[in-house]
Amino acid sequence: MGEAAFTLRDILWQAFKNTTLGCAGLRKLTTAELNRPAVEQLQQLPRIPLVLLLDNIRSAFNVGSIFRTADAFRVERVVLCGITATPPHREVLKTALGSTGSVPWQYEADAVGAAGRLKQQGYRMVAVEQTDKSRNLQEFLPDGRPLVLIFGNEVRGIGPVLQLADEAVQIPQWGFKHSLNVAVAAGIVLWEICRKCGWIGEG
Amino acid sequence: MGEAAFTLRDILWQAFKNTTLGCAGLRKLTTAELNRPAVEQLQQLPRIPLVLLLDNIRSAFNVGSIFRTADAFRVERVVLCGITATPPHREVLKTALGSTGSVPWQYEADAVGAAGRLKQQGYRMVAVEQTDKSRNLQEFLPDGRPLVLIFGNEVRGIGPVLQLADEAVQIPQWGFKHSLNVAVAAGIVLWEICRKCGWIGEG
Repeated sequence: MGEAAFTLRDILWQAFKNTTLGCAGLRKLTTAELNRPAVEQLQQLPRIPLVLLLDNIRSAFNVGSIFRTADAFRVERVVLCGITATPPHREVLKTALGSTGSVPWQYEADAVGAAGRLKQQGYRMVAVEQTDKSRNLQEFLPDGRPLVLIFGNEVRGIGPVLQLADEAVQIPQWGFKHSLNVAVAAGIVLWEICRKCGWIGEG
Repeated sequence: MGEAAFTLRDILWQAFKNTTLGCAGLRKLTTAELNRPAVEQLQQLPRIPLVLLLDNIRSAFNVGSIFRTADAFRVERVVLCGITATPPHREVLKTALGSTGSVPWQYEADAVGAAGRLKQQGYRMVAVEQTDKSRNLQEFLPDGRPLVLIFGNEVRGIGPVLQLADEAVQIPQWGFKHSLNVAVAAGIVLWEICRKCGWIGEG
């Protein structure tokens, strides 16, 4: 009684933790070798002309994960609207792993107002949503304008701000479920659009 | 005393829930309009020749999210190794949203053994990892062989099974943080490889 019960997973994990990752062909890089810029350096570096507008994202874990992706692609800014959790929400910080400090962000309760201002500033407003007029992501063509990508609630999708979108794109899917996780979708759309815009070069 | 405290977010959420999503230009599709196949139908449909091998993924939420992506891209199979949580783990089911029933999967404690068998069967073994010899994802070239994509632990990366990889790919990143969430990375890599292999057509 009172003894710890070890499962197969616990034993595997203990073994894994103590394993040296020396490999024949490939050697995993250390954090130092990755040579990432410090937050202070990042503030001097150019960011891509792309804003993520998150409209009523329910899960703070998803918000944190999107921050981490926004950091990796060095997006201009993240605009958090409606019920979307904002830093320093505990669950946002947990999945953002520090990236809320490196990515510029703002909270605007009213997504329509926020989107309206961005539209007036000349941003091309792209809803990521399955609509009657959505084009498949691979058909997206850049036209030189800065971009706003709008992502909506996990269950209900994008709210009334959808009216302000110039167009909609969707990720083609062939499965049983009707959608991807919103943070995964944001990663795929960012990758494809950055690639098409020439923002992903030799790394 | 004892009264519920309503925050701005609660009020916005109530307003949002009761909003009709009628929009000027774009109309969100209903679930019925998405016309996804039922699980029974899916079992008759072809799947892409690509296996996801998850090596010691710590977060069951990530595993569930990867299942959902695997469903969307209709991948051949998911192999869960080491400490990776398996269905019907509660957190896997929570983020998989039913996709554990539509994606073939198996558990193999020993990732090296599982990878060894796949390699013998002629699969091209691709580690998704930052190594000294990784090529950037956009440089990946298909060669007609079926693929295994190996993803590793959120903190320590891929374990000894890295030795069995024929090559490694990495997602180029420009941020302060050193990596993307593993489920987001899996989505991006799957998208790019499916696109390159011609598995993403008109949707």
